[in-house]
Amino acid sequence: MSTTPDLSGNSGYVIPGGEFTRDQRYIATRITADGRDGYPVEAGRYRLVVSRACPWASRAVVVRRLLGLEDALSMAIAGPTHDSRSWTFDLDPGGRDPVLGIERLQEAFFARFPGYERGITVPAIVDVPTGQVVTNDYAQMTLDLETEWTAFQREGAPDLYPEALRDEIHAVDEVVFADVNNGVYRAGFAGSQRAYERAYARLFDRLDWLSERLSTQRYLVGDTITEADVRLFTTLVRFDPVYHGHFKCNRHKLEQMPVLWAYARDLFQTPGFGDTVDFVHIKRHYYEVHRDINPTGIVPAGPLLDGWLTPHGREELGGRPFGDGTPPGPVREHERVPAGHTPLDTGTPG
Amino acid sequence: MSTTPDLSGNSGYVIPGGEFTRDQRYIATRITADGRDGYPVEAGRYRLVVSRACPWASRAVVVRRLLGLEDALSMAIAGPTHDSRSWTFDLDPGGRDPVLGIERLQEAFFARFPGYERGITVPAIVDVPTGQVVTNDYAQMTLDLETEWTAFQREGAPDLYPEALRDEIHAVDEVVFADVNNGVYRAGFAGSQRAYERAYARLFDRLDWLSERLSTQRYLVGDTITEADVRLFTTLVRFDPVYHGHFKCNRHKLEQMPVLWAYARDLFQTPGFGDTVDFVHIKRHYYEVHRDINPTGIVPAGPLLDGWLTPHGREELGGRPFGDGTPPGPVREHERVPAGHTPLDTGTPG
Repeated sequence: MSTTPDLSGNSGYVIPGGEFTRDQRYIATRITADGRDGYPVEAGRYRLVVSRACPWASRAVVVRRLLGLEDALSMAIAGPTHDSRSWTFDLDPGGRDPVLGIERLQEAFFARFPGYERGITVPAIVDVPTGQVVTNDYAQMTLDLETEWTAFQREGAPDLYPEALRDEIHAVDEVVFADVNNGVYRAGFAGSQRAYERAYARLFDRLDWLSERLSTQRYLVGDTITEADVRLFTTLVRFDPVYHGHFKCNRHKLEQMPVLWAYARDLFQTPGFGDTVDFVHIKRHYYEVHRDINPTGIVPAGPLLDGWLTPHGREELGGRPFGDGTPPGPVREHERVPAGHTPLDTGTPG
Repeated sequence: MSTTPDLSGNSGYVIPGGEFTRDQRYIATRITADGRDGYPVEAGRYRLVVSRACPWASRAVVVRRLLGLEDALSMAIAGPTHDSRSWTFDLDPGGRDPVLGIERLQEAFFARFPGYERGITVPAIVDVPTGQVVTNDYAQMTLDLETEWTAFQREGAPDLYPEALRDEIHAVDEVVFADVNNGVYRAGFAGSQRAYERAYARLFDRLDWLSERLSTQRYLVGDTITEADVRLFTTLVRFDPVYHGHFKCNRHKLEQMPVLWAYARDLFQTPGFGDTVDFVHIKRHYYEVHRDINPTGIVPAGPLLDGWLTPHGREELGGRPFGDGTPPGPVREHERVPAGHTPLDTGTPG
């Protein structure tokens, strides 16, 4: 959901003296099997707009792939950086998304809500026939892909949101969001030393708690991959390239937290996770866009990425990654992360 | 020698599009045994002005202590931060150095050179009777403490600059200065992506070269501690707290480079090195002063420091730390780094 916080052109993320508060007002319209909000689940009708840089959008990218929804729900990938008018399709020929025919995600928001004043955020789902955005509610979005889009999920799709575990998933998600997913932003965009130190303490206390929990169980909830793992993964994978330095989350690098580092590598090496991660987009986004904490816009060359492919040893904890399901197949040719942007051998030169 | 680069009030360290170039023009006057520049070595006549934050000044702090020059050459410690008019004695009662009676180091420079326009830098040595700065030539300063101040060195003072090894020490110092000591600044203050990446590559290539060299010998030159080790140490000790994040030297943390990390811990645990290091001053200086790369002025809470005291195993490589000499005694009471600013047990609550 990263975006410029103030679309009037003020590119400030930090409020001096203050705390970072995330604008949590999203478009709550849902795409459901029964179509009760006017948008029924249909194959080929909607387009998921993401940036590979954004951790909130990356949740949807991972879930879509784990569930095999690529054919039912197409995907537009915005460029990693944006200006005060938000995400653009500058990676596409002519700077235009070939399906929606627009240059900026903003256009889809304005098509539905002229003069829309909240954040133009990814992930967003756009109704292709009307060109109107349907929703940008990132938290509900993955749950709906899991529970409403079942008719179009691939054979062997895992159950990422098992009914019996939902209460526990919610409980874990709540503290992981507050202290980790959003906690790194609260540290990085803190407007005072005190606000920063409070966010830092909460973050690392929670990471210690997660390390403890994950030292005896392979996944966060139950013995299979769930929504909870997806949500934690997209923050962990950004930790050393961005949050450790740029957001000053520097008690330890992820690589120095053995349990979490092994857990993150385990997921990274699982089809559907690492093969969605573009480290170049991730680093460029944070370091180029947040000029008020990195005025030069210079993007760090490090860290090295080869560690992501080293053995993690987590199989010893048991667990059945996909439960009764199966791993997803290869990434679609046109959705592959370019070589040079990932430690994986993706077969496509960057 | 850190200072504000432009005393007109411009606090910019980064020149957009450019490379960082260190102003290397210092006051070349020397204090010598024969007094040929008008300043003979004398006990009690001069005052060394330092900041514990500054790596260039810290060389002099370490050397002074290794050689036991504390009684002959007193020391003023400036506060860790400064404004466009440079270093101040804000740690002292009334904000005034008790011996020199001045509030700003600038006053000693102006006393000798009215309207002095180059950098007001530490380390500097001031002639107490006249209140005039004698020299701020940090590179010559430690060599002179080693070779000109011999009459006042303690019994058992090591030979940090052995005649037979001077060519080798110079050769090592030259590349360590260009690629490491100053290399981290070239990365951190780069005005373009290209200049940054060039500095980053040179830095880590040189660190690899140093790791290789130090994998089979305990010290950089010969089998005892020399000037070359002092010069490398003051950069390494700042690597994880500052250079890794603030200056984007993030291929690896020092803690992730096993040979250099063990070498740095070995020195840190040697009397005269770690007991001069104030991690609070170091972090506050870089993060509060360099507003053009850290506009919020927020100082990171990490990293943890306890690793510095873990066993390093370097004794197995042999070496005689102080050669035919002995380690220095305890730190003078009034020169101790406050508890809370160091992982060492200094006996003084911060």
